[in-house]
Amino acid sequence: MKYPEKTDLPGIKQIKKAYRQIREHIHQTPLMSSKFINSLSGSDIVFKCENFQKGGAFKIRGALYNVFSNLKEHQKYGITTHSSGNHAQAVALAGSMAGIKVHVVMPENAPEVKTEAVRSYGGIITFCKPTLKDREKTMDELIAEYGYKPIHAYNDIRTITGQGTVSLEILEQLNYKPDYLITPVGGGGLLSGTSLTCGYISPGTKVIGSEPANANDAYLSFRKKQFVPSVSPNTIADGLKTSLGSLTFPIIIDKVADIMIVSEDSIINAMKLIWERMKIIVEPSAAVGLAVVLDNPEVFKDKTVSIVLTGGNVDLKGLIDNFLLNK
Amino acid sequence: MKYPEKTDLPGIKQIKKAYRQIREHIHQTPLMSSKFINSLSGSDIVFKCENFQKGGAFKIRGALYNVFSNLKEHQKYGITTHSSGNHAQAVALAGSMAGIKVHVVMPENAPEVKTEAVRSYGGIITFCKPTLKDREKTMDELIAEYGYKPIHAYNDIRTITGQGTVSLEILEQLNYKPDYLITPVGGGGLLSGTSLTCGYISPGTKVIGSEPANANDAYLSFRKKQFVPSVSPNTIADGLKTSLGSLTFPIIIDKVADIMIVSEDSIINAMKLIWERMKIIVEPSAAVGLAVVLDNPEVFKDKTVSIVLTGGNVDLKGLIDNFLLNK
Repeated sequence: MKYPEKTDLPGIKQIKKAYRQIREHIHQTPLMSSKFINSLSGSDIVFKCENFQKGGAFKIRGALYNVFSNLKEHQKYGITTHSSGNHAQAVALAGSMAGIKVHVVMPENAPEVKTEAVRSYGGIITFCKPTLKDREKTMDELIAEYGYKPIHAYNDIRTITGQGTVSLEILEQLNYKPDYLITPVGGGGLLSGTSLTCGYISPGTKVIGSEPANANDAYLSFRKKQFVPSVSPNTIADGLKTSLGSLTFPIIIDKVADIMIVSEDSIINAMKLIWERMKIIVEPSAAVGLAVVLDNPEVFKDKTVSIVLTGGNVDLKGLIDNFLLNK
Repeated sequence: MKYPEKTDLPGIKQIKKAYRQIREHIHQTPLMSSKFINSLSGSDIVFKCENFQKGGAFKIRGALYNVFSNLKEHQKYGITTHSSGNHAQAVALAGSMAGIKVHVVMPENAPEVKTEAVRSYGGIITFCKPTLKDREKTMDELIAEYGYKPIHAYNDIRTITGQGTVSLEILEQLNYKPDYLITPVGGGGLLSGTSLTCGYISPGTKVIGSEPANANDAYLSFRKKQFVPSVSPNTIADGLKTSLGSLTFPIIIDKVADIMIVSEDSIINAMKLIWERMKIIVEPSAAVGLAVVLDNPEVFKDKTVSIVLTGGNVDLKGLIDNFLLNK
């Protein structure tokens, strides 16, 4: 695994430039807070509502910056990625914004709501078996056949730079520097970008990665300072099952203050609290940050904490039908 | 039924004064919009998110102004109301903010989430049979025994004045006067307040009441210009089952541009759209306004429309448990 050269890492100028490039194409999502949740946690929390972002998740930031970084080539050859979830949607949406052909690989068990979304943005889908190996193989075949350029979900400096604009925006919106900034960690693109941005413009802010205990590969990698892969994790936080990448792992080791893990029950409880008390819809992966705060009051008591609510893409169809049946 | 004397109706000065009195105690809720919903409807819609309001609904505005209007007496005697829903919560919350004893009458079949909320604000509950007659009788008994002052959910000029601050706030937040402003109509407190405010400061805005076809008493009253009571309505929009009041009926006849009705299917479809596309939780009653716009594209095409999302108090417990079972 190769540590990216220092010169490979984006500086704050590059992250700000990325933000200027994408900002007119994305939502400046609001910060929200809940007195009830603050009194429950004993801390002063603001939530960054990327569940309101275009495509329903922060992923559009990295996808869009990645696409813009090499626009002519992307327009000429088209783009591809493999993903079962929010990244596939984001790449399809970014492609539709930039007039680029998008052809994504999705596992055959991907939720219909995600495949529908990809198609609604004009993306073509090739299905494959739901293993990382088959996903990569299928994407490689598409690249060999059509010459598409791949847009990686996290292990690409341009994707990481785009995700670094979330915390840039938070720090612009706040009139103070928070004690803590918490993001979930799956492949580590958002956490890497966040730790870079904060390191440059708010070095006193401790950046924390939050992870399900049932998918604790980033936690173990961080503790051992050695890459540990994710092996068949079973968690409701389905966006956080991925292993770290060769680029995100060393950035996280170097820049992140800590990675903290939480149980499935804690994640579910945090998600319920956000739905019930804030009246907003977040996906389970987005609730892991609040779960960390609620499980560790001794760490966060009387602190200012920013938590990124990463997405809100939940399949509501069955959920609402059930609600109606019970009326 | 007595038409309120002209002098009884609040002027714009009184509505603005009410807003100054309550505004530091409530949230200035955001306006939100959805490109998808706009493209679907062909109109330019902003949603006023009172589902984010304290107590989860706009009702706190009227309750709080009512409480403040006669603060010393309310503090001396305590307050009461009867309600199965958002108004009971709002009165309990307003009482807790103003240091007033609150004792509410709730039907024995009121949802646990509502009774829990009333108790969490320190309200005492006396249960009764779920009929209007029994609710009123039980409240009268409490008043006779304890001397409480009643806070009516809609048929009180102070409540109406407080609800009139919703549209005042919308018009302050917008940098234009919308062609239409739509609120749901149950007892008519919000619709009355809205029509008064708009009549004063945005007379070109047409104020529309939206109502379930299955609870079309306000629609019939408006068409016939004669009070028609609500008789055992069966609608998912459980906040809109009430009849108009002796004060709200004549204001609505005089000031409102139209009342439009929609089917249960249209309400459900609109609620799903708001949940799925805006990632926010609204109760069925709050979705009736969007249903009206989607059902009548010929009326609202290319128009600017403000819709009040009145509340977000949905019992999510069973809903989320079911979601988790399906994972």
